[in-house]
Amino acid sequence: MAGGKSHPVSPLAPEGMPELPAIAGIEVGAVEAGVRYKGRTDLMMMRFAPGTVAAGVFTTSKCASAPVDWCRSILGKGGARALIVNSGNANAFTGKAGAAAAKTTAVAAAKLVGCKADAVFLASTGVIGEVLPAEKVTAALPRLATTLKPDRWAEAARAIMTTDTFPKAAVRKTDIDGKPVTIVGIAKGSGMIAPDMATMLSFVATDATLPADVLQALLAKAVDKSFNAITVDGDTSTSDTLLAFATGKGTTHKAVTKATDTHLRNFKAAFEDLLIELAQLVAKDGEGAQKFVTITVTGAQNQKAARKIALTIANSPLVKTAIAGADANWGRVVMAVGKAGEKADRDKLAIKLGGRLVAEKGAVHPKHDDAAATEHFKGNDVKIEVDVGVGTGSATVWTCDLTHGYIDINADYRS
Amino acid sequence: MAGGKSHPVSPLAPEGMPELPAIAGIEVGAVEAGVRYKGRTDLMMMRFAPGTVAAGVFTTSKCASAPVDWCRSILGKGGARALIVNSGNANAFTGKAGAAAAKTTAVAAAKLVGCKADAVFLASTGVIGEVLPAEKVTAALPRLATTLKPDRWAEAARAIMTTDTFPKAAVRKTDIDGKPVTIVGIAKGSGMIAPDMATMLSFVATDATLPADVLQALLAKAVDKSFNAITVDGDTSTSDTLLAFATGKGTTHKAVTKATDTHLRNFKAAFEDLLIELAQLVAKDGEGAQKFVTITVTGAQNQKAARKIALTIANSPLVKTAIAGADANWGRVVMAVGKAGEKADRDKLAIKLGGRLVAEKGAVHPKHDDAAATEHFKGNDVKIEVDVGVGTGSATVWTCDLTHGYIDINADYRS
Repeated sequence: MAGGKSHPVSPLAPEGMPELPAIAGIEVGAVEAGVRYKGRTDLMMMRFAPGTVAAGVFTTSKCASAPVDWCRSILGKGGARALIVNSGNANAFTGKAGAAAAKTTAVAAAKLVGCKADAVFLASTGVIGEVLPAEKVTAALPRLATTLKPDRWAEAARAIMTTDTFPKAAVRKTDIDGKPVTIVGIAKGSGMIAPDMATMLSFVATDATLPADVLQALLAKAVDKSFNAITVDGDTSTSDTLLAFATGKGTTHKAVTKATDTHLRNFKAAFEDLLIELAQLVAKDGEGAQKFVTITVTGAQNQKAARKIALTIANSPLVKTAIAGADANWGRVVMAVGKAGEKADRDKLAIKLGGRLVAEKGAVHPKHDDAAATEHFKGNDVKIEVDVGVGTGSATVWTCDLTHGYIDINADYRS
Repeated sequence: MAGGKSHPVSPLAPEGMPELPAIAGIEVGAVEAGVRYKGRTDLMMMRFAPGTVAAGVFTTSKCASAPVDWCRSILGKGGARALIVNSGNANAFTGKAGAAAAKTTAVAAAKLVGCKADAVFLASTGVIGEVLPAEKVTAALPRLATTLKPDRWAEAARAIMTTDTFPKAAVRKTDIDGKPVTIVGIAKGSGMIAPDMATMLSFVATDATLPADVLQALLAKAVDKSFNAITVDGDTSTSDTLLAFATGKGTTHKAVTKATDTHLRNFKAAFEDLLIELAQLVAKDGEGAQKFVTITVTGAQNQKAARKIALTIANSPLVKTAIAGADANWGRVVMAVGKAGEKADRDKLAIKLGGRLVAEKGAVHPKHDDAAATEHFKGNDVKIEVDVGVGTGSATVWTCDLTHGYIDINADYRS
């Protein structure tokens, strides 16, 4: 059942992909390498001009995949000259053979591009526990190189899909010190079907000229408010990878030396905004998702505590099924706050559903309108706000509901 | 929809309840008080002879219910003379009015029994966010007192059910220093239907003569291997309550002074064994459960780390749906180990499904038999063993699969 059953496109999908402009210094391409799937592209490449720098954030899993190990080992060593991503096989939990397959891929791509292997970034998504058939990848590479064009982002976004029901991309045009700068990003979500591994991959590129350490600092900060603020089922892939590349080609802005440079203000806002859009697209394509859910926690001890409480609410099966069933069961939100383990004052707790106060001071609000709350939960854009009454920490996270579709997708027989 | 829809009895339910003998010094009864449900008992009482001591373990929720607050405040103050438990209303997140309702109940029961209010233990399970209608409880108490008999355990077990599909009880006959001692326990599980709150309640009684601090020490230790080792969906109730009572009536064993007394050995084993049986019954009645799952983690840094890894596997929606779908997808077990955040050596990881090695040394086992593993997952008693290769810590937890039944039960409209 290579490629898995196909599932209907998420009702939360946007109308289509935005127009994705070329980024000076980057060419993109995709081919069918037959790693696992048939009749679709499954191998994507980006080629970067000399001078391109990279930044990366990876899974917190203690069982990270071979390509994650590879990227971690090369990050910060040299520049970035190529990115090779395959779908269909995650090359995770594959021991030394998996590490060798990753290296083989990087060496072959380096030869093709004319660079060192440690300038080739890798990502893999798909089945776990099977060594990546590197020979299929290396055999397809020369053909892949012929497909490279500056604006083939849409093809790239499609090639990295596993059980995503729509391709994901975003663009921002901004400026550094008044000079135009463009950022383009693509992502794949945590669509998962046996035997594929839920994985979030995202690749973002800009023509700005940024030192590698500045790009890394910007990425680390922005990921906190974007990809670290979404959840589908609380499960963490062995392969989650977010890479950013800055080519420094075709723009003439004032030099950047520190992440705190004031002339980076617009760029930082646009970069973070683009990552939030990509992250939200991933949540909107969660397995079986019918509703997009925004959870905001305020009044926590600090920002970290606020996010932990928000994620606990977002990951609670009881909250997620209540949303699926349009049951404005705020008692389950109380339960989730209680189990998060962070400081909360039960007797000051306040909850809003769809902007309306349903509970405050540790008890139901006297004017709570259950019918209005239920009506809000029947929509596909659900908002939950909780103030836990102990401090000023706040956080917003995004998730989706837990539906029969999730069970259908994930309880499928593997063959 | 008072009482919720009724769901079919779990396929994992035992044949029936065991014979439950009287415990000297305890009388038990149940009546229909009409707290929320109609046509069934919903109020349970135990009356204890003077001299009875109590021990308790409660939810870790930061939003604990009023009866949990009450029990915590009286534990260790005096003895135990009564226990009053209602179903249908959890009296949780009800502020000062909820605390007052709890106190009213305790005071009324104390009057009836002829003791101080701080010798009356309370538990409530059911809807959250509504104050317990104490007047319904106090009105029913005199009638309830007339139903008290030494052996009405089965009625008690039924009265505390919410959406449990079967009543849960266990018995152990053991000895202290050669003298016969009996332990009886009842429990209700985390059956949950909107708007009822998933809650685990369990009450255990023995005729042994035990100092309160010894009983507390035994309970705290045994809960670790029993109720703290089960999970249905990882959600924690505001109301979880486990109480143990020792009457010291009708037995003539040698005095106990410390939890480490060697003549307590048989009792300790029987007590822990009974709690494990009750905890397993709760897991077997998880919402929508079709399969009982035992997860054993070895080779962890310590016991706490082992349990965290085991619970992460047990709570992973991807693992639970794989089990529901009879998909022996051990890659999801790797994922769960990775996300647990505890030390694990990916390159030494070994996994057994149904006793058969499927992976070792960080890669699939060369003789892995996928068909045999799938066959094991098709049964209703699934065993997963993981060695994480870093130490000697081990733990076993029990859970159930995640099925369409769970969504059906929990995504129901509240009205």
